[in-house]
Amino acid sequence: MNKKMNLLMFSGEYDKAMAGLIIANSAREMDIDVTMFFAFWGLLLLRDPDKMTLEDKTTYEKMFSMMTPKCAEDLPLSNMNFAGLGKEMLLDMMEDDDAPRLKDFLNGARKKNVHFSCCKLSLEIMGLKKEELIPEVEIVDAKHYINNAIECNMQLFI
Amino acid sequence: MNKKMNLLMFSGEYDKAMAGLIIANSAREMDIDVTMFFAFWGLLLLRDPDKMTLEDKTTYEKMFSMMTPKCAEDLPLSNMNFAGLGKEMLLDMMEDDDAPRLKDFLNGARKKNVHFSCCKLSLEIMGLKKEELIPEVEIVDAKHYINNAIECNMQLFI
Amino acid sequence: MNKKMNLLMFSGEYDKAMAGLIIANSAREMDIDVTMFFAFWGLLLLRDPDKMTLEDKTTYEKMFSMMTPKCAEDLPLSNMNFAGLGKEMLLDMMEDDDAPRLKDFLNGARKKNVHFSCCKLSLEIMGLKKEELIPEVEIVDAKHYINNAIECNMQLFI
Repeated sequence: MNKKMNLLMFSGEYDKAMAGLIIANSAREMDIDVTMFFAFWGLLLLRDPDKMTLEDKTTYEKMFSMMTPKCAEDLPLSNMNFAGLGKEMLLDMMEDDDAPRLKDFLNGARKKNVHFSCCKLSLEIMGLKKEELIPEVEIVDAKHYINNAIECNMQLFI
Repeated sequence: MNKKMNLLMFSGEYDKAMAGLIIANSAREMDIDVTMFFAFWGLLLLRDPDKMTLEDKTTYEKMFSMMTPKCAEDLPLSNMNFAGLGKEMLLDMMEDDDAPRLKDFLNGARKKNVHFSCCKLSLEIMGLKKEELIPEVEIVDAKHYINNAIECNMQLFI
Repeated sequence: MNKKMNLLMFSGEYDKAMAGLIIANSAREMDIDVTMFFAFWGLLLLRDPDKMTLEDKTTYEKMFSMMTPKCAEDLPLSNMNFAGLGKEMLLDMMEDDDAPRLKDFLNGARKKNVHFSCCKLSLEIMGLKKEELIPEVEIVDAKHYINNAIECNMQLFI
């Protein structure tokens, strides 16, 4: 039977999302079953920029939709002002090494059948709709997350 | 035998504390034994605002006591300036969805017999006293934490 | 057989590094096998300040080498502006309690045979060289990390 891994993606930051997705992609190549559960800021990673809608949203939800990153590539760094190092500089350094971008790792994870789930409560609070996210995401509650995670061989909160 | 979960609460941030406490509450409803170990900034979550004292504290400890959040509801967001979204805005969005506040999740965890422990060294460095915290907290050292965590079915660093 | 623990050190922050190293040191004293895997900002913890080089580096890599913390003691706090509390204040509070510094915990972990590994891709992107790090670090890829972590009794992302 395959080993199992569960990653709770809480952060909406470029570098942490990259760490999580590199682990997910590598684990799939090792035939490990991988479930990623996106909650709070992590949800922003799953937005499809072409599917943003403002319909049926409260004023706050509209503001939130417009002010937050529209997709994975728009996420900020966790250490944005860390010694003055900006995201552009990091991206340039990655380019020098032919390293893939975050969206490449996200698409890789989708192709490799990482199971994508996201937190129902976070979705409601942020006023995002299922149809604004990448289509394979399953909307689940905290108990569903725990049920999966507690049976896994490893779990991380990222 | 019940499954077991251990959550190391390092962060003193409203949204991360909420994620941890939602997981703890949900796990207890699933009959999972839950231990939360509060260390560093996480300690601030356990302060009882009515029991702050400045007695027997050094100048730094007094400053620290006065300048840091007095209780769970006072904690800042991890992404406080994230796209201009403030904590008030998030709280308003939660209210629109009738979502409970952090203090409700904290009280829920207390009623559901989550085991609360906190880090002796952190307490000493920050100059906080046991009687300034919610009463059910057990003061333990890192080895005690590890002893519990390593026997659990899942562990998170939040 | 010994229990096993794996800590992924992602953060380049003084307080989080301290939490990870306190856990690692305590676990070793309990005869638990400990592997620390340093990735992204976590790499900065392993720099040897006397071995910095700018040779064979691109402009960005040179800038990065010069602008980022040179060793463990130079790391910033995760909550640097948290209620105005600065790192100096925390260090003074630690000194009042005779608490060891981060470098002491790092040296302790080295003496106690914590296994140090670091992420090949992070090293390449940041343009750091093996010889700029403390000598016992093994350079490995994500699969090597997963291979170890998934067999451990506990894993944390710090």
